[in-house]
Amino acid sequence: MTIMNAKASYAASAIKTPLLIYFGDAPSYDYAKTGLGLIQWRRGDCLGQLRLPGCDVDGGLEDLSIEAAVAAGAKSLVIGVANTGGVIPDVWIDDLANAARAGLDVVSGMHMRLGDLPVVAAAAEQSGARLIDIRTPPKSLPVGTGRKRTGRRLLAVGSDCAVGKKYTALAIEKEMCQRGMKATFRATGQTGIMIAGQGIPLDSVVSDFLSGAAELISPDAEPDHWDVIEGQGSLIHPSFAAVSLGLLHGSQPDALVLCHEVGRTHCIDLEPEGEYSIPPLQSVMDLNILLARRVNPAARFVGVSLNTSALTKAERARTYEVCVEQYGLPVIDPLIDGAGEIVDKIEAEFCS
Amino acid sequence: MTIMNAKASYAASAIKTPLLIYFGDAPSYDYAKTGLGLIQWRRGDCLGQLRLPGCDVDGGLEDLSIEAAVAAGAKSLVIGVANTGGVIPDVWIDDLANAARAGLDVVSGMHMRLGDLPVVAAAAEQSGARLIDIRTPPKSLPVGTGRKRTGRRLLAVGSDCAVGKKYTALAIEKEMCQRGMKATFRATGQTGIMIAGQGIPLDSVVSDFLSGAAELISPDAEPDHWDVIEGQGSLIHPSFAAVSLGLLHGSQPDALVLCHEVGRTHCIDLEPEGEYSIPPLQSVMDLNILLARRVNPAARFVGVSLNTSALTKAERARTYEVCVEQYGLPVIDPLIDGAGEIVDKIEAEFCS
Repeated sequence: MTIMNAKASYAASAIKTPLLIYFGDAPSYDYAKTGLGLIQWRRGDCLGQLRLPGCDVDGGLEDLSIEAAVAAGAKSLVIGVANTGGVIPDVWIDDLANAARAGLDVVSGMHMRLGDLPVVAAAAEQSGARLIDIRTPPKSLPVGTGRKRTGRRLLAVGSDCAVGKKYTALAIEKEMCQRGMKATFRATGQTGIMIAGQGIPLDSVVSDFLSGAAELISPDAEPDHWDVIEGQGSLIHPSFAAVSLGLLHGSQPDALVLCHEVGRTHCIDLEPEGEYSIPPLQSVMDLNILLARRVNPAARFVGVSLNTSALTKAERARTYEVCVEQYGLPVIDPLIDGAGEIVDKIEAEFCS
Repeated sequence: MTIMNAKASYAASAIKTPLLIYFGDAPSYDYAKTGLGLIQWRRGDCLGQLRLPGCDVDGGLEDLSIEAAVAAGAKSLVIGVANTGGVIPDVWIDDLANAARAGLDVVSGMHMRLGDLPVVAAAAEQSGARLIDIRTPPKSLPVGTGRKRTGRRLLAVGSDCAVGKKYTALAIEKEMCQRGMKATFRATGQTGIMIAGQGIPLDSVVSDFLSGAAELISPDAEPDHWDVIEGQGSLIHPSFAAVSLGLLHGSQPDALVLCHEVGRTHCIDLEPEGEYSIPPLQSVMDLNILLARRVNPAARFVGVSLNTSALTKAERARTYEVCVEQYGLPVIDPLIDGAGEIVDKIEAEFCS
């Protein structure tokens, strides 16, 4: 058994493919975002899915037993469920142990550690399979230095948590790569790390090393290479603004994209609800720029990325118009439009 | 043996007094700030000091052997040294083990854990003494909520690291208590925690729980009670701004004091030096206010606290004049003036 954490993953691009996606007994699609994200963004790496009776999620992959997946060449079983608390339910344990026993690496983004499950640990010990806990940060991280690095960086920031920062960054990376630009998606959260195969779970890093971890995520690169960095939290969310600032300082972004869900009026996951309203987007951008310029005086916004799922087509068009007028920036809904307009702007501003 | 961390300390005001201060083989006063801070701020709790041959520090306490200290009623041996890396040197281990064997709790702010030293752990096991690692944060911290708490809060913030934030907070607490105001110093770093006997080492907390830990440090209190909170880092220091922001948001300060060392032009501990200049103090204050008002719209500065050790008396007087004129706030050097002028301002603004 080799118990790995994100540091090892980070260095060694650790997750072996192809993947068997594990949905366990997930009762709804809300709990399956990790697996569904993998299927959306790394479809070619996903061999099949494994589900328990009662699972109400279908990722559109072939249902495979562990034996069938191994026979078909699978190298890792990835837990595709993200539940509250990050606890691994007892009913999954047989499957996880069987996968490890059959030689599949087991990859988890849960808080609970795979190596702490005796049956799973014993099975991995026996076969030599690796237990990879994505949410465990590296053991020895550096303190941030603020040293200016080579290469270009884009950071997706948010008006709140859960507004599409990861999706936006992935869409921009995809568009850049399709155009032949050099670009790498840089993951900072568990699902992003699974999709990228490497990264550091910033919310799990000890505070003193937060900006240092962010610096490590987007290292020196060729002058025309773009790191497209997944944002975390929001500078205006009172629970998580510190994580957002450490990431902003460590990223030294040349370009920022603001992500927002149309219709969201208040920061989520706070009690009582409605205490913290989301201010005008311009002031969220101003705050990000003010703080980003401490580490990169040229930092600027290159676009706005909206989740417009609550709008009709006509309302969306009208919203875009208003935004373009107000902010003077390209506006996209990446699920609908892709990220072409934002990459146009980047090419015009940075690549000519 | 009971291995405690700051959570237990926090809940139980854990450090038992009187204290035997351990200076080990500290080669100079620069390495002895923790012990000297305890002697300065908690003189009545300090029974004596224990030094190895070659120690060049004298805290002005009676030199006591472990046996003599126990006979005189000592309850804890506190490591008064803070070295780079937080490593416990081999030459201390006999003393630490002997102290534990004699029934003294051993209190350490080093990174290295006391329980990881087999001889010390065995000695504590045998006697029932506690091994208290100040730098180990609580195991289960909450996520911040942003919920407004009762009572008043003051936070000392900095233009940089190591500019007197802890000293300033302690001086303000002392002045408030002398005037009969209700006030509690709230510690967020290792030396502060030793002085207060409780607290949370914020730089060691996992990022996701940073503002939650800060909320825990200054809980609901009587309306006229002041929590005087030790600041950490600086919003403009690219290594540690995230810690500063988590503490700022979690503290919800009504009042802020800016701490600065006169003559300091650039942020310390960065390579290359001189990359990050300290901007005008007014802009440091503006940035703190902008971010503090997210959680407390009434947040404002009530004073400036300077380290003027580089100045002559005449230069100091001139500096005060300029500052008062520029910022319209009381200006002190707490080592020279105490905190009376700042507490005057607080009484005038909040207590009438």
